[in-house]
Amino acid sequence: MSKVLITTVPFGDKNRLPLEILENNNIKYVINPLSRKLTESELAEMVTDFDVIIAGTELITKKVMDGATNLKMISRVGIGLDSVDLLEAEKQGIAVSYTPDAPAPAVSELTVGLMLTLLRSVHLSNIEMHNGKWTRFFGRRLSEVTIGIIGVGRIGTGVLRHLQGFCSSKILLNDIAPNHGLDHEYNVEWTNKETIYQHADIVTIHTPLTIKTKNMVKKEQLLSMKQGAIIINTARGGIINEQDLYDVMQSGHLSGSAIDVFDFEPYNGKLQEIQRCVLTAHMGSMSIDCRTRMEIEATEEVVRFLTGQLLESVVPEEEYKVQRQGL
Amino acid sequence: MSKVLITTVPFGDKNRLPLEILENNNIKYVINPLSRKLTESELAEMVTDFDVIIAGTELITKKVMDGATNLKMISRVGIGLDSVDLLEAEKQGIAVSYTPDAPAPAVSELTVGLMLTLLRSVHLSNIEMHNGKWTRFFGRRLSEVTIGIIGVGRIGTGVLRHLQGFCSSKILLNDIAPNHGLDHEYNVEWTNKETIYQHADIVTIHTPLTIKTKNMVKKEQLLSMKQGAIIINTARGGIINEQDLYDVMQSGHLSGSAIDVFDFEPYNGKLQEIQRCVLTAHMGSMSIDCRTRMEIEATEEVVRFLTGQLLESVVPEEEYKVQRQGL
Repeated sequence: MSKVLITTVPFGDKNRLPLEILENNNIKYVINPLSRKLTESELAEMVTDFDVIIAGTELITKKVMDGATNLKMISRVGIGLDSVDLLEAEKQGIAVSYTPDAPAPAVSELTVGLMLTLLRSVHLSNIEMHNGKWTRFFGRRLSEVTIGIIGVGRIGTGVLRHLQGFCSSKILLNDIAPNHGLDHEYNVEWTNKETIYQHADIVTIHTPLTIKTKNMVKKEQLLSMKQGAIIINTARGGIINEQDLYDVMQSGHLSGSAIDVFDFEPYNGKLQEIQRCVLTAHMGSMSIDCRTRMEIEATEEVVRFLTGQLLESVVPEEEYKVQRQGL
Repeated sequence: MSKVLITTVPFGDKNRLPLEILENNNIKYVINPLSRKLTESELAEMVTDFDVIIAGTELITKKVMDGATNLKMISRVGIGLDSVDLLEAEKQGIAVSYTPDAPAPAVSELTVGLMLTLLRSVHLSNIEMHNGKWTRFFGRRLSEVTIGIIGVGRIGTGVLRHLQGFCSSKILLNDIAPNHGLDHEYNVEWTNKETIYQHADIVTIHTPLTIKTKNMVKKEQLLSMKQGAIIINTARGGIINEQDLYDVMQSGHLSGSAIDVFDFEPYNGKLQEIQRCVLTAHMGSMSIDCRTRMEIEATEEVVRFLTGQLLESVVPEEEYKVQRQGL
């Protein structure tokens, strides 16, 4: 009987259906007993005799795969593949699937919520008010600011769509493969990243984590942003250098930031000291509907694999190419 | 020389233009030295020899007007007129102007921001994260919930427009004078307030404070809402009964609330104890652009008044009628 290790947590929490799918197919499963993101070593130790991993964002490296002699498939709950050594998986004949569409609506909505929170200092006023302090913070409106979206795939495009209800005045876009189909539908301007850093009042990152985007936003980029600008990362930890963001904000630069993703999760670091940095616990995809869809899609793919059916969401060759080029 | 008392604070803070307008017209002014909302007695004591008040939301009652023997005009920075005894002003021949359009865009944007904050527990995660605690809160998306808007004037309509970028599935509207022009543009359903309380996942209030809306949302209404529903008040304190909201949320009902306006401001009350109640300091209109526009419009109206020109934003008869009927 095949054994599935579910590392991503929570899983089957708000909707048991993904677990029932496994049970109805007589697939034995174990849910990550540590209830948090596993380290490479923890996973290596835990995965030894499993056939399949239903995976979160923990590292699935050569070391992990070498020890997992039965491992035949990795089913990623989510879109990012930075955590999986695809080339090693390919070498060891391990199939990899993912759920590229399901998380996007939840991430893009959260991102717009973070923009509004930061523009109006809701996070600061809320903490002050709960401590009995009354300050009427000035803010800005979405339609009065320039917004820069770096990475205009599923999520970045969702953000762009949400912003239409606010008549945003100016939207700057950057992507390694610009989708000029958007130009007909929206009033946007494609430009380079440097221009976005310099001119946008809000910069929001929606790229994957690759060798090209790792540390893409360092001190130099942050300091090239306007004094009162805002930066948001709901993509992947490591794209904005955490230490640099801390240093730059500590020095008084930038009016706010929102960071949902971290180098090491669960996060426990110095950005905690910066009150005008909104911190959330990798909750981009955590709407009940999107999370459920992600879990079900990932689980159904596992069932297909274990019952010899054709897979529907195999990671495309393009993603292997990205890793072949570096990461 | 005419003397103007500016009670609303901040004023001329981010943009000095309104003060310069007064100075260029040789109008003497004093800005509220207490830098917070005045009580009725404080205002009565302060206003004695002024000709004009550029007013916030402090009470301008018969008592205040009786003591202000020179008072000829009240220029409200904002839209709500619940604070001004219009009938007494009429009796004493005091002109009243206001700025009904300027605040709306800022209030409607803040409201949508509060919806997204509450739906995704950004306020809770942010506080936890700053204390080193990692919980991945589940949330819901705007497009998955039913939204009820009570009061569909300038601000309510703005909220409706912003929501279009999120493809919201179901929007329920209530207003004493429904604008059915909206039906052609948006997918909405007009209904009574009871239906909204019972069926909406988010209820947001955008009515004026009148005798009919004072305590409109009491324990009964709050308890008729869904267990996990959200209520937002960026309109006026007193429309939702504060004590009842506290009791109901303390008992575990409602997943969240956001309150920007209070019975007594600056607020210092028991809602501070409710972590899932987002509190802000009457910041609805506090975007720099809207606030500046409000201050300039109110000031220009004062200049018109004092230089014998026709007023442009006199409070319409309808508002007097509302007060004649009760408040």
